[in-house]
Amino acid sequence: MPIDPDATIEITAFEWVPPFAQGFVRDLRPRWACEEIGLAYRERLISAVDRPEWYYAEQPWGQVPHLREGEIAMFESGATLVHLGEKGGLLPKDGQPRATVLSWLFAAYNSVEPAMFEIANATIFARKQDWAPLRLPSLLEDTGKRLDRLAAALGDSEWIAGDFSIADIAMVTVLRDIDRTELVAERPGLRDYVERGKARPAFKQALADQMRHFEANAPKQTAGA
Amino acid sequence: MPIDPDATIEITAFEWVPPFAQGFVRDLRPRWACEEIGLAYRERLISAVDRPEWYYAEQPWGQVPHLREGEIAMFESGATLVHLGEKGGLLPKDGQPRATVLSWLFAAYNSVEPAMFEIANATIFARKQDWAPLRLPSLLEDTGKRLDRLAAALGDSEWIAGDFSIADIAMVTVLRDIDRTELVAERPGLRDYVERGKARPAFKQALADQMRHFEANAPKQTAGA
Repeated sequence: MPIDPDATIEITAFEWVPPFAQGFVRDLRPRWACEEIGLAYRERLISAVDRPEWYYAEQPWGQVPHLREGEIAMFESGATLVHLGEKGGLLPKDGQPRATVLSWLFAAYNSVEPAMFEIANATIFARKQDWAPLRLPSLLEDTGKRLDRLAAALGDSEWIAGDFSIADIAMVTVLRDIDRTELVAERPGLRDYVERGKARPAFKQALADQMRHFEANAPKQTAGA
Repeated sequence: MPIDPDATIEITAFEWVPPFAQGFVRDLRPRWACEEIGLAYRERLISAVDRPEWYYAEQPWGQVPHLREGEIAMFESGATLVHLGEKGGLLPKDGQPRATVLSWLFAAYNSVEPAMFEIANATIFARKQDWAPLRLPSLLEDTGKRLDRLAAALGDSEWIAGDFSIADIAMVTVLRDIDRTELVAERPGLRDYVERGKARPAFKQALADQMRHFEANAPKQTAGA
């Protein structure tokens, strides 16, 4: 589905990010949901390097994504997934199916992703700080135990909460964020689950659309730098 | 509102937790929502010390809360807040009010609480590990910056997302979890916000109900221990 400058839905993303983050920025999540549902959207690109001060009034921490639909604005990728999911069947309307999807959606955001944040701190952002190499072993061990329970809950199921849902968009992208560790690769059930997610045409399109602008918007090498 | 053993809603909580956790276990959140809405609930108490293996089939990490309403079961306190909020006006049905509450609900769970988890690790659970005292300064500094932006977004508003909502139940309990640091006390806007939340009769009742069983269920001192 091509990006549509006249679409009612607008997704805010970064015009460029450093290579380690390319393909992993969280506007990927609402992009993926839109592609699954067949909802056209337009893009608003802002600078991650020189974050515009006005943007903090729309997103308190200057993060992406931010999403608009007509007059309605929201932030936090989890909120965008609930909003989009309710439009297109990726969040069931009621009963146990809805409760199961909501449970796993929050599990991805609050019981799995926080460990990913600290792994990213210890291996990327703060890797040269004295605490990072000391913290990493117990962090990986504790996260591994959490992932063992996740793998057990997934079992042989294709998706984490019944039919494919916003819980899978969240969980697959959360697990994919630690591709640089062995935590997922060591657990075949989770590895295959992530691969199933990445094989969906909607994921591939969303990823391509996030990546599309990075090369053209890469910072110029300054002379003598 | 007294706990009602015949209520349709069931909240699973721990029969006892160590003193540092008493009053801070996350079944407080759906208890608080039920009290605000006036929904009767019953309790199911399990051991935190000797976590029953069967419980992991209901909650993948053995955590609380777990919530049932009739035949419908769910876990993750965020999911219980969405479920309860939709019944009683604490989550608006549509438009910008709903988008704003969902944004701040996920902000509490994914942009603020993850830092609280790592602060708890560094100051309680892993405080004797070599990395903890090295990690703490930058963790507190980064969290402080995040809270500065939160305080700016709150401004002079009484609540974080319009009328009192499930976003406040989440954000107040998340901020209250770092009472043992100065991070909230140093920011009068956030300090007053947390105090406003704690002053609500529904919060006080929920807190009293969580605390009620701890004394009777405290582990017996074993002779010679």
